[in-house]
Amino acid sequence: MVNQERLWQRLMTLAEIGRQPDGGITRLSFSPEERAAKDTVRRWMEEAGLSVREDAVGNLIGRRSGQQNDGPVVLTGSHLDSVYNGGNFDGPLGVLAALEAVQCMQETGVETALPVEVVAFTDEEGARFRFGMIGSRGLAGTLTADHLEAVDANGVRIRDAMTAVGLNPDDIGQAARSSGSVAAYVEVHIEQGTVLERANLPVGVVSGIAGPLWLKFSLRGQAGHAGTTAMDARRDALVGAAAIIQEIEAACRQEVHTVGTVGQLTVEPGGVNIIPGQVEFTLDLRDVDAAVRTRVEQRIRTVAARICADRQLDLSIAVLQDIAPVRCDERIQAAIRTACAQVGLSPLTVVSGAGHDGMQLQHLCPIGMIFVRSKDGVSHHPAEWSSPEDCAAGAEVLYHTLLQLSQG
Amino acid sequence: MVNQERLWQRLMTLAEIGRQPDGGITRLSFSPEERAAKDTVRRWMEEAGLSVREDAVGNLIGRRSGQQNDGPVVLTGSHLDSVYNGGNFDGPLGVLAALEAVQCMQETGVETALPVEVVAFTDEEGARFRFGMIGSRGLAGTLTADHLEAVDANGVRIRDAMTAVGLNPDDIGQAARSSGSVAAYVEVHIEQGTVLERANLPVGVVSGIAGPLWLKFSLRGQAGHAGTTAMDARRDALVGAAAIIQEIEAACRQEVHTVGTVGQLTVEPGGVNIIPGQVEFTLDLRDVDAAVRTRVEQRIRTVAARICADRQLDLSIAVLQDIAPVRCDERIQAAIRTACAQVGLSPLTVVSGAGHDGMQLQHLCPIGMIFVRSKDGVSHHPAEWSSPEDCAAGAEVLYHTLLQLSQG
Repeated sequence: MVNQERLWQRLMTLAEIGRQPDGGITRLSFSPEERAAKDTVRRWMEEAGLSVREDAVGNLIGRRSGQQNDGPVVLTGSHLDSVYNGGNFDGPLGVLAALEAVQCMQETGVETALPVEVVAFTDEEGARFRFGMIGSRGLAGTLTADHLEAVDANGVRIRDAMTAVGLNPDDIGQAARSSGSVAAYVEVHIEQGTVLERANLPVGVVSGIAGPLWLKFSLRGQAGHAGTTAMDARRDALVGAAAIIQEIEAACRQEVHTVGTVGQLTVEPGGVNIIPGQVEFTLDLRDVDAAVRTRVEQRIRTVAARICADRQLDLSIAVLQDIAPVRCDERIQAAIRTACAQVGLSPLTVVSGAGHDGMQLQHLCPIGMIFVRSKDGVSHHPAEWSSPEDCAAGAEVLYHTLLQLSQG
Repeated sequence: MVNQERLWQRLMTLAEIGRQPDGGITRLSFSPEERAAKDTVRRWMEEAGLSVREDAVGNLIGRRSGQQNDGPVVLTGSHLDSVYNGGNFDGPLGVLAALEAVQCMQETGVETALPVEVVAFTDEEGARFRFGMIGSRGLAGTLTADHLEAVDANGVRIRDAMTAVGLNPDDIGQAARSSGSVAAYVEVHIEQGTVLERANLPVGVVSGIAGPLWLKFSLRGQAGHAGTTAMDARRDALVGAAAIIQEIEAACRQEVHTVGTVGQLTVEPGGVNIIPGQVEFTLDLRDVDAAVRTRVEQRIRTVAARICADRQLDLSIAVLQDIAPVRCDERIQAAIRTACAQVGLSPLTVVSGAGHDGMQLQHLCPIGMIFVRSKDGVSHHPAEWSSPEDCAAGAEVLYHTLLQLSQG
């Protein structure tokens, strides 16, 4: 149904915008590169006969009318910005698969009860301002004036960057959609993991988006001379931390979808011949099920407390960030499964470990996601890759999903 | 026998030289503070009736004649320099206990066959030039012109520092003692550990000085997204390192005297939400018995290789430093044990985890050490402390030891 060649050519065309010398892509929000990408997609939207506009936070929107043209809209899309030196599929595939699906509707002349809108959200990644999902927050009505004070590496605020591209930061409220005005949001995105690859499947049905809990563990023992302090007289903060790190892995492995990562660790005083007196490390803990995540968190806290008590270490744990997991809507998941069946694909349920724009829309409308197989699970890297066939399969499943969701 | 009050007053007098605002002591080599300390001790040596000189590397030497005055000398002492903001006992106690013991010989008028020399070595700690034991290397004849190229934080070479205090760096060979000219070296030093404190004993007989083996472990796995990479699809270098750190502790605990310390650890890329792709950490491994240390090292290497193979991590291990352990001479140990018995002390055998000047003299003469109890094992810190009674006990044991060793 969908035009695999057209979809792939558009992906390859976008890949030239913001391309770096080593092949990666850098398209930061409100940059000339992001502008060029939006202009290119705008032209394709217009070629497809969509009614195109940009809203008050810069979201690019191409609309196809429905029979109930003042009824709620079915929204589909993703983002066009990238991380520094990122890949070509994280974001663009969701925008172009949405465009491809809606262009197929145009070409088949199918009529839908509800209008369908293709959206390219402004700044999902947050690479420039270390604050992301600006466009989806704006559309959800949760973006605030405070958020616009975040600055980039040059001290430029989001507010300033918006003004520079002709947006009025005082008008962000105009981008907010009203309650009931969005019937559903569904997004195609690369998996960024290896579940589909290992299952030998091109697409998956996302059941939820994991929310990251970020904790900082601080262990305080007693620094001392590496030569003169007997093993049984030590209060070594690093050996205690190592024991906790082992237990974090074990606790996560007991669950199906939980992932836990210690990504930062510092040792004080840090001399080769000095027993570590203090260690700090972070934990990023995620699950799509809030109850499971809490169970694992409690298990980790309990075992960490026991390890530190046994080793006479002082332990404190601070919460750096706590984002609740988001469940995908059951009706949308069912529609995606039906669509998979229609195109002859086995509908494997997967979870999203990474955050996506849909998280911001959770209180506005039901959301759903379709994942496309990633080669080797690599993402945010020039080697990010999904095959033309897999990209088309994602668009095809989206097409059949949109037909169901837009019945009204 | 020894004069506890005199010994203590001298310790307290030295504590004023190089004293820092927070109570620590900084007496770097070739500094005005080290000079002032040597001048003070020189005056006390002269008061005790010793024949005083300084050799070509600045070692301060006070000599008491023996009946065989051209026979080999019994050498005893320690150093007067300190680390940055160090304590008052590491070094000075050994010099002043030696002076006290020899002054007692003077006062009792005892005659010995062999001459006895009290030595205050130049720069044991290496705090200034990150190269230490300069005086003992010079006396052993192992100090080279290359060594003198080491620079301090201001770019001043050892060579320059020597010239500035009136020493000729080209004359260092004149400090070397000839083979057979030193009958024994015995040193009183604070334990810097808690073995004596836990055994409730003021002094201990040192059986050997542990040599540090420094290894650097490099583990390379695969960095990845903390949210999207399933637990069983990870090659997390930090979890692997944590497992090895646990095994290092376990391997050391299987032995009596082995100590192993991971004091430095770095994680790459180091993002909260990025799986560690690379970890480097150091190991400081020590034992007084080279064979035991090698056995533990092999056990650690084997288990590290297994852990990394299981986790698909690349492992490399580099040797940063490998200093052989030094055994204390059995005859000197026996003399110290006899001395302990003479003063009514139980002769507990202990090991030295830290390095000492005696290590440099191992090929020149038999060496021995007497340890004095350290409060809480604290050293290289203003809180370093040994009681007046314990310091006197160390000097008393040394006195009786020197009487035996100087019989000829």
